[in-house]
Amino acid sequence: MAEVTATETAPGPRITHVRLTPVLIADPPLLNTTGVHQPYTPRLIVEIVTEGGVTGVGETYGDTKYLVLARALADALAGHQVADINGLFTLAGRVCHAEGGGLDVGGTRGVETAEKLRLSVVSAFEVACLDALGKTLGLPVHALLGGKVRDSVEYSAYLFYRWAEHPGGVGERDGWAAALDPAGVVEQARRLVERHGFSSFKLKGGVFAPDEEIAAIRALAEAFLGRPLRLDPNGAWSTETSLYVARELAGVLEYLEDPTTGTPAMAEVAAATGLPLATNMCVTTLAEIPEAFTTGAVQVVLSDHHYWGGLHRTRELAAICRTFGVGVSMHSNFHLGVSLAAMTQVAAAVPHLDHACDSHYPWSTEDVVAEPFTFEDGRIEVSDAPGLGVELDRDRLEFLHRRWLDDDGSLRDRDDLAAMRVARPGWSARRW
Amino acid sequence: MAEVTATETAPGPRITHVRLTPVLIADPPLLNTTGVHQPYTPRLIVEIVTEGGVTGVGETYGDTKYLVLARALADALAGHQVADINGLFTLAGRVCHAEGGGLDVGGTRGVETAEKLRLSVVSAFEVACLDALGKTLGLPVHALLGGKVRDSVEYSAYLFYRWAEHPGGVGERDGWAAALDPAGVVEQARRLVERHGFSSFKLKGGVFAPDEEIAAIRALAEAFLGRPLRLDPNGAWSTETSLYVARELAGVLEYLEDPTTGTPAMAEVAAATGLPLATNMCVTTLAEIPEAFTTGAVQVVLSDHHYWGGLHRTRELAAICRTFGVGVSMHSNFHLGVSLAAMTQVAAAVPHLDHACDSHYPWSTEDVVAEPFTFEDGRIEVSDAPGLGVELDRDRLEFLHRRWLDDDGSLRDRDDLAAMRVARPGWSARRW
Repeated sequence: MAEVTATETAPGPRITHVRLTPVLIADPPLLNTTGVHQPYTPRLIVEIVTEGGVTGVGETYGDTKYLVLARALADALAGHQVADINGLFTLAGRVCHAEGGGLDVGGTRGVETAEKLRLSVVSAFEVACLDALGKTLGLPVHALLGGKVRDSVEYSAYLFYRWAEHPGGVGERDGWAAALDPAGVVEQARRLVERHGFSSFKLKGGVFAPDEEIAAIRALAEAFLGRPLRLDPNGAWSTETSLYVARELAGVLEYLEDPTTGTPAMAEVAAATGLPLATNMCVTTLAEIPEAFTTGAVQVVLSDHHYWGGLHRTRELAAICRTFGVGVSMHSNFHLGVSLAAMTQVAAAVPHLDHACDSHYPWSTEDVVAEPFTFEDGRIEVSDAPGLGVELDRDRLEFLHRRWLDDDGSLRDRDDLAAMRVARPGWSARRW
Repeated sequence: MAEVTATETAPGPRITHVRLTPVLIADPPLLNTTGVHQPYTPRLIVEIVTEGGVTGVGETYGDTKYLVLARALADALAGHQVADINGLFTLAGRVCHAEGGGLDVGGTRGVETAEKLRLSVVSAFEVACLDALGKTLGLPVHALLGGKVRDSVEYSAYLFYRWAEHPGGVGERDGWAAALDPAGVVEQARRLVERHGFSSFKLKGGVFAPDEEIAAIRALAEAFLGRPLRLDPNGAWSTETSLYVARELAGVLEYLEDPTTGTPAMAEVAAATGLPLATNMCVTTLAEIPEAFTTGAVQVVLSDHHYWGGLHRTRELAAICRTFGVGVSMHSNFHLGVSLAAMTQVAAAVPHLDHACDSHYPWSTEDVVAEPFTFEDGRIEVSDAPGLGVELDRDRLEFLHRRWLDDDGSLRDRDDLAAMRVARPGWSARRW
């Protein structure tokens, strides 16, 4: 139809200003196929303030390329209606000129595009708008998403091969032992269960040779009889290796996550095994869905509201998955309590959430929220407080922002490969 | 994951009671492949009242089978949170025990299932909840759906072959002439354009032999040069006839709507013609989407928020269509101003609405809203008033309800076939 664009005539609170606070957060030496987490990882806290004096908060990736886009969007937001989520995306499309197009960002979140970069930034603003809107209206965010269908959201224990400390002893110590073999992984799992009550487990793989990781999964299966187990090598395996592991772990795994890279290879593996395949790599944008769903490449999509563009779009993704009989759960990158609150609110409002969600939160020793979350029986209670139900601890936020300000730039862009090369010069990501 | 269901602990307004008002609305003698519209058609007005005294209104089909389900849902709704849309569907699943399963309801809205019947009922409650929530919060419904992306919504002129009056002169006269040939159709179109400013046209076909309808479309193309035209025979044609018409009207039609019945036949037609196919018959539920989209059977889905289950789900449908590169617009059955308001609000909030929407509203001579809508340049302005932006005219509602009460039951269930047999005993729906 001939189009008439929208003017901002609707009632409702408007944004007066936006605060962006990049922070550096202590991150343990967790290993993955690319390398190792840096001692500190960048995150961005987005606050929008309304004319009524209400503050809404969101969180996303804090690397420089995200900050550039976030600043452009923040500068354009004054006067924007908080409820106008569609308009937020339109505005971002106008002012956020991301570079990108087919860059591989290291095997952990699929192919990077300008659009995905932009959505990752807008998501924090969308969450902040929903938080502010909820606070203004006296409604929890889940009520703005159609209402919670569960009172708590289940998370899985996210197991990592790891060192006890960062190379050279830099960064913070978190009191966790190294885990570099099946016994270490099982011990880590036991301690996570003791502390948080998890009853399902995901091991980040692609670190050691597949047989070693198979052995770790078998040790977990023995130690935690009948509990759901998953293995995620971030696409580090060939089709043949993937099929080998799928055969070895048939009946042991709940699903295998991104064994190999690219939708055609995933489809080939899926066709040859009865083991469900999950992904947060080959389906990370709407454009990737038709090929993946029509070729049966994935049986579970692990949504990440950061890169899918927020909570409304996560709900839409879940509806698409449900329509095509594909399961849905949630992916996690290293994050703070603001994002855990957002994940929990949207997870609460998704009717068919088929698996426990992933979260790095138990590995976080620092947070920006006044009351950090605690897991009970592996679950986070769904807050019914207005908005996300979190408040920022301004002193902590300032402290973590100071760390970012004081950094010489070497940590402001997360680079697991470079971090690994500190310990192992000449390191390059391995493939099997 | 192990599931914990939601308790109703969230804040926000609750429903105290529900009013259901079935009405009979004057309906002109519009012809379709099944038969002719009855002199009066049943609709149901749903009102929910919150503890704060706010009333929200919705509208849906009013046939007996819908009323039965609506009563069951209304009886169960006291205490339900207005914002809990997900919970509304869960509740309906528990209390609305629809009969159904594969019944053909006469070629106008695809196969009838228990689920679709239930969704058609729940949709009116969902709209009423959104209206009440918007009124409570001071926000238009579109702001609860992510915000309007356009200030007005374009509708097409919905052309019908018709008689001047109902058989035997029963029912109301609406002052329109008969339209039974190309000249009559063009004259009707001219008058609709004069009154409402439409700039695109849809002809309800399947009434006369395909060559006569082709001639009508050609006459329209000549009279309204370059304007979008559509033809919708409600699945009355064979694959061969469909292909014949598609060939004849290639380059003349914007799209052909439901030329034939069933997804495989639609896919066959689509594969053999460059003319886009639209549907509100072979894709009417989420379950029908995978086959239709993967076989390329439809290029445009005409959503109807009544049978897709409301406004949230219409947004989700639009997201699914967008993901698969399928266009989306809106279907209409005979309706009143409440539904026109709901259609306009959701249409305003759908980012990619590719075609002017259908509406029977110009054929309606009666309404239940205090200020009936007017089209300007074929468009309805998107209301920014709280909720849907409509108020009921209680006297009119009572008058139209009285007509329903006084009916001996013969008009309470719309039956175009029976209505046609009054004029033509022994009539049965034709196929070409």
